[in-house]
Amino acid sequence: MDILHRIGVTASPDAVYDALTTIDGLAGWWTEETDGSTEIGGVVRFRFIPGGFDMKVVESERADHVLWEVVDGPEEWVGTHVRFDIKREDDFTIVLFRHEGWREQVEFMNHCSTKWAIYLMSLKRLVETGKGEPAPNDVMISNWH
Amino acid sequence: MDILHRIGVTASPDAVYDALTTIDGLAGWWTEETDGSTEIGGVVRFRFIPGGFDMKVVESERADHVLWEVVDGPEEWVGTHVRFDIKREDDFTIVLFRHEGWREQVEFMNHCSTKWAIYLMSLKRLVETGKGEPAPNDVMISNWH
Repeated sequence: MDILHRIGVTASPDAVYDALTTIDGLAGWWTEETDGSTEIGGVVRFRFIPGGFDMKVVESERADHVLWEVVDGPEEWVGTHVRFDIKREDDFTIVLFRHEGWREQVEFMNHCSTKWAIYLMSLKRLVETGKGEPAPNDVMISNWH
Repeated sequence: MDILHRIGVTASPDAVYDALTTIDGLAGWWTEETDGSTEIGGVVRFRFIPGGFDMKVVESERADHVLWEVVDGPEEWVGTHVRFDIKREDDFTIVLFRHEGWREQVEFMNHCSTKWAIYLMSLKRLVETGKGEPAPNDVMISNWH
């Protein structure tokens, strides 16, 4: 089972790729507390107030796509993959997002789906305006943050 | 295949239920151009600039849940169901959303997933502040609006 999203941004495919493959870029839209290596085979650590995720970079092709494997984090996430496909369409750069391989349709999956949308809108804002809304200053959606 | 979301709002379950089961409520967060009957067996018509959806109300139980069947609209939507479950948790009213029964994982499903998140945040704003962001003044996410 997969979480799917799609956004279009007015920035270039290269700008989107940079926001997905540099520590500064990732810290600018997902969570300020980001470190590690964004090279293929490297692990990026994302931390939030309640915990975090470690992502191994499986594939990364400039202005085309990025694929991560979740190697540490909540048990529902470990072993799942997060994929960003980038393409150009109608003067927009389109980001097709997929968080794939959820094993059960748990309530946490509902939460993560909505929260991914919030973060992708933060990515959009970052590449379009230079300023995103990463954690801990992200938009709160519920009691689960 | 399903689109899932989860939000929590500080308004009551009754207020959420009203926003899902009255024409004024629905027009306050999804699209201003809403009409029809919200009774069980009735059909609610939602219109947007590029088209719209007709939803048959299959189940509706105060402060508990609402279930719609899509009876007209884009072919990918017809025959799918949209379900809102309402419950109380930690001083929040939780809305569990499911748009279920997608037959193919098409790019339009990615778009609709992100857009549902935007509209659910509009529902949250409506019940918490009295003012949502329904179409045609909804947040634009891409070239597909």
